Amino acid sequence: MLLVVLDLVGIAVFAISGALAGVRARLDTFGVAVIGVTTALGGGIIRDVLLGVHPPATLRDWRYLLVPIVTSLVVFWLHPQFAKLRRGVLLADAVGLGLFTVSGTATALAHDVPSYTACLIGMTAGIGGGALRDVLLREIPMVLRKEIYALAALAGGVVVVVGEWSRFPAGPTAVVGAALIVTIRLIALWRRWNAPTAPGIGT
Amino acid sequence: MLLVVLDLVGIAVFAISGALAGVRARLDTFGVAVIGVTTALGGGIIRDVLLGVHPPATLRDWRYLLVPIVTSLVVFWLHPQFAKLRRGVLLADAVGLGLFTVSGTATALAHDVPSYTACLIGMTAGIGGGALRDVLLREIPMVLRKEIYALAALAGGVVVVVGEWSRFPAGPTAVVGAALIVTIRLIALWRRWNAPTAPGIGT
Amino acid sequence: MLLVVLDLVGIAVFAISGALAGVRARLDTFGVAVIGVTTALGGGIIRDVLLGVHPPATLRDWRYLLVPIVTSLVVFWLHPQFAKLRRGVLLADAVGLGLFTVSGTATALAHDVPSYTACLIGMTAGIGGGALRDVLLREIPMVLRKEIYALAALAGGVVVVVGEWSRFPAGPTAVVGAALIVTIRLIALWRRWNAPTAPGIGT
Repeated sequence: MLLVVLDLVGIAVFAISGALAGVRARLDTFGVAVIGVTTALGGGIIRDVLLGVHPPATLRDWRYLLVPIVTSLVVFWLHPQFAKLRRGVLLADAVGLGLFTVSGTATALAHDVPSYTACLIGMTAGIGGGALRDVLLREIPMVLRKEIYALAALAGGVVVVVGEWSRFPAGPTAVVGAALIVTIRLIALWRRWNAPTAPGIGT
Repeated sequence: MLLVVLDLVGIAVFAISGALAGVRARLDTFGVAVIGVTTALGGGIIRDVLLGVHPPATLRDWRYLLVPIVTSLVVFWLHPQFAKLRRGVLLADAVGLGLFTVSGTATALAHDVPSYTACLIGMTAGIGGGALRDVLLREIPMVLRKEIYALAALAGGVVVVVGEWSRFPAGPTAVVGAALIVTIRLIALWRRWNAPTAPGIGT
Repeated sequence: MLLVVLDLVGIAVFAISGALAGVRARLDTFGVAVIGVTTALGGGIIRDVLLGVHPPATLRDWRYLLVPIVTSLVVFWLHPQFAKLRRGVLLADAVGLGLFTVSGTATALAHDVPSYTACLIGMTAGIGGGALRDVLLREIPMVLRKEIYALAALAGGVVVVVGEWSRFPAGPTAVVGAALIVTIRLIALWRRWNAPTAPGIGT
């Protein structure tokens, strides 16, 4: 039950990032709703395709569609406020990455894939929706740009796997994993904790 | 049998839209053929992946490849005429969306997925090929731009599902569903029946 | 055993092309590693999704991740030398296309799909990683641009299928198929053996 709530929060949070990106790209209501839904559901659908879950879970439960549609429309109508809250949006995006990576890793472990594979599938679930959003809007995906992103997701996935090995309760493990991802992302954002660009090509 | 013919017509129609987009992007013969085939088969492959049909049906029947290759090459050689028939192409694109959404929804229902899921998978089948075309050619996908697109597809999928519930014959239901999608798309195109952009950012 | 080595060589080779493209796009260390890994593993993951192999083989064996990460980082640190070796890189890319198409076709045949389907899935495996790389970096995929690419892959896939029909030993068949692809690609690159652009639109 807690997991479903967390899942829906993650979906809402990614819908916000997708819808705001859509507003910036000057999409109309429908376009903003479509990009919000795609961003929110993309990672989970990719995860389920990799795990062989047919049809993907997010296409079977109407709440998984209702939440991002409503969220996207709210973002569309209120976007001036949201745009001013850019820090809040980046926070939300980081929270989404944390929740989805952790739930993706846990879902993969529940399907009896090896720990190593579960980490990679969790990372993909966390990164996938945002990458899809950026490709559809012709941006270079955030995971490729100047911020620690894939590594943050990987760290969270490792926490979930180690928790599973140690037979820790799943709830606290998930919270710690997600918190770790969010923390790394926020430090990266606020300290511009970026890796150097390749030597010799400048910035 | 009728369904296969309709399917092939839909594939030819999407191949036309893909090949023309390729000619506009100044691709050579091979590139035009590849983008035509990708546009024509993309939606069906995505549908089958979501449904767990392995390998995808469109990769098993040589007609599903021959039709878009021949169509793309014909478009390549005749493209000046086609370019003048832009209205005809938009009509064809709308017809393709209609046929693919309806056949995708019906295929999903035949795989015993819930009605709700079937609608979403049908939408994805109808939208997928065109979105792939636009991403590969670095356009923002049509489904995100200023025309009612996803909603038209959804309406047609709902018709198929309601027809199934009511135990209507599948043939007429499919025709009505596809016609509804095509009609909505054409009204949107010709009346510029667009939704407003977000308040405060102008056009 | 030989096949695994060839597979890892193909992965390293595609990682080089992805990492170099990432360096050109001015990505940082993390971005270069992510695009290198994505390019190297993308084709195999798409192949396994189409074949219904869950989870994809490249997500189960740590060597398939270690090789492209190390390769990408080496490219990142040494890139001036690599950039001067552009011909070497194009050679490597062609070798990667050859190895992946052939191994993809053979893998598909081993999963008992029809020969025709195996050819198409092999092509997709060979082309997929590079197409993903180009889409993520906002390039028009190489397979759509001015060089024979899809056709070269198809030719190699046909060799593998014909070898299977003729009950030829798999090893030599794979070598001949890959060599054919590489040869066609190199002739295309060096002779600018390009197809004409559509009549009437110039270059």
